[in-house]
Amino acid sequence: MSGRVLVTGASGFVGRRAIDALAARGYEVHAVARGGAPDGAPDAVRWHAADLLDARSRGELVGSLHASHLLHLAWYAEPGAFWAARENAAWVAASVGLLDEFAAAGGTRATIAGTCAEYDWTAPGPLAEDAPLVPATFYGICKDATRRVAEGLAERAGLSLAWGRIFFLYGPREDPRRLVASVARALVAGERAPTSAGRQRRDFLHVDDAAGAFAALLDSDVAGAVNVASGEAVAVRRVVETLAQAAGRPELLDVGALAERPGDPPQIAADIARLRDEVGFEARVTLADGLASTVDWWGARAP
Amino acid sequence: MSGRVLVTGASGFVGRRAIDALAARGYEVHAVARGGAPDGAPDAVRWHAADLLDARSRGELVGSLHASHLLHLAWYAEPGAFWAARENAAWVAASVGLLDEFAAAGGTRATIAGTCAEYDWTAPGPLAEDAPLVPATFYGICKDATRRVAEGLAERAGLSLAWGRIFFLYGPREDPRRLVASVARALVAGERAPTSAGRQRRDFLHVDDAAGAFAALLDSDVAGAVNVASGEAVAVRRVVETLAQAAGRPELLDVGALAERPGDPPQIAADIARLRDEVGFEARVTLADGLASTVDWWGARAP
Repeated sequence: MSGRVLVTGASGFVGRRAIDALAARGYEVHAVARGGAPDGAPDAVRWHAADLLDARSRGELVGSLHASHLLHLAWYAEPGAFWAARENAAWVAASVGLLDEFAAAGGTRATIAGTCAEYDWTAPGPLAEDAPLVPATFYGICKDATRRVAEGLAERAGLSLAWGRIFFLYGPREDPRRLVASVARALVAGERAPTSAGRQRRDFLHVDDAAGAFAALLDSDVAGAVNVASGEAVAVRRVVETLAQAAGRPELLDVGALAERPGDPPQIAADIARLRDEVGFEARVTLADGLASTVDWWGARAP
Repeated sequence: MSGRVLVTGASGFVGRRAIDALAARGYEVHAVARGGAPDGAPDAVRWHAADLLDARSRGELVGSLHASHLLHLAWYAEPGAFWAARENAAWVAASVGLLDEFAAAGGTRATIAGTCAEYDWTAPGPLAEDAPLVPATFYGICKDATRRVAEGLAERAGLSLAWGRIFFLYGPREDPRRLVASVARALVAGERAPTSAGRQRRDFLHVDDAAGAFAALLDSDVAGAVNVASGEAVAVRRVVETLAQAAGRPELLDVGALAERPGDPPQIAADIARLRDEVGFEARVTLADGLASTVDWWGARAP
């Protein structure tokens, strides 16, 4: 398939790479960001400046663009704060409004970013899409509520809708307040990198693969929730040790210096059968390569 | 307590009576309806014309009114259609936006109309507020999603929030396409009134009591979900037979002439302990009296 796609959150971590992946698939890509085109944005993409939280600004863009496809990645994403922030509520309203307006303007296929935080994290095994949904955070509650409404809305509006549940991401351009980026940045700067004991296991996916997975998902006719993950949960300790090795500075790593977060689940693992078998997507970046290239990216920017 | 209350859906079935109940409790009542004041609206209430689905219209009203209290009753309510209508999604966005704006404008206490359709209707016993929430309809899904988001939003905004789950209502001014009104109207007009076998049991509450319960709930500091119901589930057959007796036209009633709706639950019964014991509200209108006065009301309007 191809068509005219509107990408929200296009200047964000996943969005910047997703617009490339969609352009490579032949889509006419329209990117929306509050500030319009960021520095170094690719020419192949048309940028629109709009505030999706402002119903009028959003409605004018969506109503005039007549996109056939929608990739909705935008959400409140301030590191740390986003889990509990009040802003999540406004993004429920904006996301439901966006989907409604997109359908009314003739849209036919949409994909929205969900989260592993919709699942019950006390469940032990790899989480398949039909695992119990018991979000423990307000972020998870708001994404879950958006999906419930969006699925019924799509059915009534004759819209095909997929919902990509993101697990844990890393890669170049990640916010330096997040785990992998903070450790990589410290290591290449020759600073001590304190971490928790890192026994908790998480599913990490490189941002390029996350962007590729969203492009593939949007470009498919798969409906409903699909995990966007690698399918392999690794101990956080292994991730930071791999970063330290890649940086050649294992002595800077101080594993166990930080306390574990109370209530942090021991494992958050994804079942990726739907992504692999129904969407037909396979990740290309191994964890070792991805972490090494992330260290290189920070190294090229070190002071 | 008292203060300045904004009532949405104020020209609707419950809203028209709720504004009286709030005025009687000493509130400065501001009513909002798309068309402004309806005919015969009480003078004690200030009416505002605004479209709550229009974010700008809504924001201007809420931002300038600085109400301390909010009673949000408005929703898409077209009889029959509302269960499955696409419009439910827009009301999720409008309701979350409204609550957010109300809090931002200094509001401190809100009550929103929920529904028994949030519950799992396959559960046999009377439904207490902590019964499983498995909405079977898009209306129920959208109300349930709104509550999930609203509760977290209220917590973050320092707002006290109650959620009144309405069961089945009846009384004067009900839409004549709904059960009790349609039968009462037919009977007083001397027309045949065909109904289903009416074995299904439902909790019916007079609209004056529903309005009184919402006023009492808003005026309390009870937080979370509270059933707004009579606590007594009666067979629909008994309801229509009582109407026929009150109208003195039992021969017009044709029980069993209409097919039962497939999947219609045999019983939807409310546990009203929270409303009675925590809010301290007691219904005043018995079912027999309420149905008789409803017949009288239609009789006064018969052609």
